[in-house]
Amino acid sequence: MHVLVTGAAGMIGRKLLERLARDGGLNGTSIDKLTLTDIVPPQAPKGLTANIHLKTADLAAPGIAEDLVKDRPDVIFHLAAIPSGGSETDFEAGYRANLDGTRGLLEAIRKTGDGYRPKVIYTSSIAVYGGPFPPSIPDDFILAPLTSYGAHKVICETLLADYNRRGFLDGVGVRLCGITVRPGKPNLAASGFYSAIIREPLAGHEAILPVGDNVTNTHASPRAAAGFLVHAASLTPQQLGPRINITMPGVCCTIGEQIAALRRVAGDRVAARIRREPDEFIIRIVGGWPRRFENTRARELGFTAETSFDEIIRVHIEDDLGGTFAS
Amino acid sequence: MHVLVTGAAGMIGRKLLERLARDGGLNGTSIDKLTLTDIVPPQAPKGLTANIHLKTADLAAPGIAEDLVKDRPDVIFHLAAIPSGGSETDFEAGYRANLDGTRGLLEAIRKTGDGYRPKVIYTSSIAVYGGPFPPSIPDDFILAPLTSYGAHKVICETLLADYNRRGFLDGVGVRLCGITVRPGKPNLAASGFYSAIIREPLAGHEAILPVGDNVTNTHASPRAAAGFLVHAASLTPQQLGPRINITMPGVCCTIGEQIAALRRVAGDRVAARIRREPDEFIIRIVGGWPRRFENTRARELGFTAETSFDEIIRVHIEDDLGGTFAS
Repeated sequence: MHVLVTGAAGMIGRKLLERLARDGGLNGTSIDKLTLTDIVPPQAPKGLTANIHLKTADLAAPGIAEDLVKDRPDVIFHLAAIPSGGSETDFEAGYRANLDGTRGLLEAIRKTGDGYRPKVIYTSSIAVYGGPFPPSIPDDFILAPLTSYGAHKVICETLLADYNRRGFLDGVGVRLCGITVRPGKPNLAASGFYSAIIREPLAGHEAILPVGDNVTNTHASPRAAAGFLVHAASLTPQQLGPRINITMPGVCCTIGEQIAALRRVAGDRVAARIRREPDEFIIRIVGGWPRRFENTRARELGFTAETSFDEIIRVHIEDDLGGTFAS
Repeated sequence: MHVLVTGAAGMIGRKLLERLARDGGLNGTSIDKLTLTDIVPPQAPKGLTANIHLKTADLAAPGIAEDLVKDRPDVIFHLAAIPSGGSETDFEAGYRANLDGTRGLLEAIRKTGDGYRPKVIYTSSIAVYGGPFPPSIPDDFILAPLTSYGAHKVICETLLADYNRRGFLDGVGVRLCGITVRPGKPNLAASGFYSAIIREPLAGHEAILPVGDNVTNTHASPRAAAGFLVHAASLTPQQLGPRINITMPGVCCTIGEQIAALRRVAGDRVAARIRREPDEFIIRIVGGWPRRFENTRARELGFTAETSFDEIIRVHIEDDLGGTFAS
C-alpha cells in the first residue's frame, strides 16, 4: 500500500506517522511506500520499514499536486493547511493554501482518471460551525463559519463530498474538535491556552488562563486525532453514505473541570501553576466557539476519543513526557 | 445608482429587469446606469431611462469580472450560472462557470479596494440541501448537497459570507425554491414538468406528468423571485447579521393540489390536458428533493411569496399570457 501524507511535518501529521509506525501499517495492511510532504521539511517516522519519500513543497504551487498523485497513492491523508489565525491575518495566503491547495489535489486525482480512485482522508475542523448554537450541536446543524479558516473547511468538505459522489475518490472529512494537549512551545493562537494550562504546569512552568472557569469546549488528545484519521481510512462508502464529513467526538468540559482533572492526575502543586489573568479579547473569541456536539454519526461509525479530561492529561504524560512530569 | 446584473438574459434576470423598469428604479432609488451581462446577448428592458450597457461575455474568462467591476457598480445582482442538469453532465464547465466565475467576481470586487463595498445579491438555490430531511427544513439545517450544482451554491454562499464578514462587500444569498410557472418552451430539466403541467394546458397543449399526485415541493412565481432579489437589496447588514444566505419562502403543495388549483383557476378542460405517464427516473430524482421549509428568517426579514398555488397560476396568466389562456 502506498500512503501519501500532506502537512506531514505538522503536529497531527507527526502523531499520525507515529501511530502508523507503531501499528506497522494502516488498519492491518503494511505500507510499502510512504510519501510525506509539507511546506517545511517533513521527517521520516522511526520504526516504519516502508520506502519513504520526503518532499518539501508548496502544495498550491503549479505541478506539485500532480507530482504527488502521479504514483497513485492508495490512501491520501490531506492535513496541510494554514491554521485559523494565519488565515485570518493573511486572506490571500489562507485561500491559496487551504482552498486552492486542496482543490488542486482533488483535481490532480480526478484528472488521473483511468479508474484511479484513492481513499482521501481530509482533516476538517469544528470551525465549520458558527453561532448561535443550540445547547448541543447535532450532526445536521448548519455550516455557517465565522472565520476564513472555517469557510475554507466548509468549501473543501463540499468539494470532497462532490468528488466522492462523482466517483473520483472515496472521501472522508474528519472534523476535529479542540486537540489538547498540544506538545511543544506555547503559540499565539487564541486557543493556545487550552493546551498551555496543562502542558506548562506539567513542565514546571507557570501558565496564564485568560478565560473564566465556566468556559466550556470539547477536547480530544493528539493520540485520539491520529486514531480518528486511521479509523476514517477503514470506513467503506457503504458505511459512510453521502454525508462523508463527520464531526469527531471528544470530552466536553469546563475550564474548571480541566483544572480539577489536572489536580487529580498531577497534584495541587502542579495545578497551582495556573495563573488567572482574564483577557477580554480572548474571552470574546472563545465565547463564539461551539461547545458541545451530539456526535451521533461518529459514534455509530465507531470513532472513539477519551472519555474524561483526566485521560487526556495522562495521554499527554505518556506520549509527550515519557511518563513523568515536574511535580 | 449603478446596477450590474450578471446572467441578465436568463429567465430570472429578465423578470428582475421588468420589475426594475416597472418600479422605475431599485427600492425607490433611480438607476442612472445599468450594466447587463450574460454569455448570450442580454436585452435592454423597455421603459427604463437609465444609461444601459449590454455586454455579452463569459464571466469566468480572464479580465471580464475586472472589467465589469471597474466602474464600481453600487449593486450587483449575480445571477449567472450553469443550471443543475448542465453542471451534472459537464463537471468542468459547471465548476468553471459557477465556482470560478463567482469567485472571480468576488475577487475583482475585493481587489478594487479603496473603500469599494458594493451590495451583492447572489441567487442561490435549495439545491444546497440534500436528504435525509426532517418534515420541515429549519433555517439551521445542514448544507449537504447531492448535485454538483448544489455544491457550487454551498461553496459560493460560503465565499459570499466570508467576503461579507471581511468587509469587502455587503452580501445576501437568496436561496430560491422551485420557480413555477416558467414561461417559454418546455425544457429537459428533471424539474421541467412542474411548470409544463400548468403552462402547456393553459396554452392549449397536452403536458405529461411523470410523478404521482402526492409528490410535494415548494414553489414561488418568477414575479416573486424578482421580488426576493429586489427586497434583498434593501436589507442592511444589521438586519442580516452573519448568516446572510436565506432560504426563500414559497407555496408548499402536492402535485394533486397544483392540479386542483389549475382546475379552479382555468377550468376542467384545461386541467384535463395533463396526461399521467409515470417515469421512474424522474420519480427517483424528484423524491430526493427538499419539500417544505420553515422560512423563519425569510419571514422575519420581510421576504414574501404567493400564499396559494392558485395565485402562482394567476401570476403566470397575468405576467406571461397577457391575462388570457386557451380555455
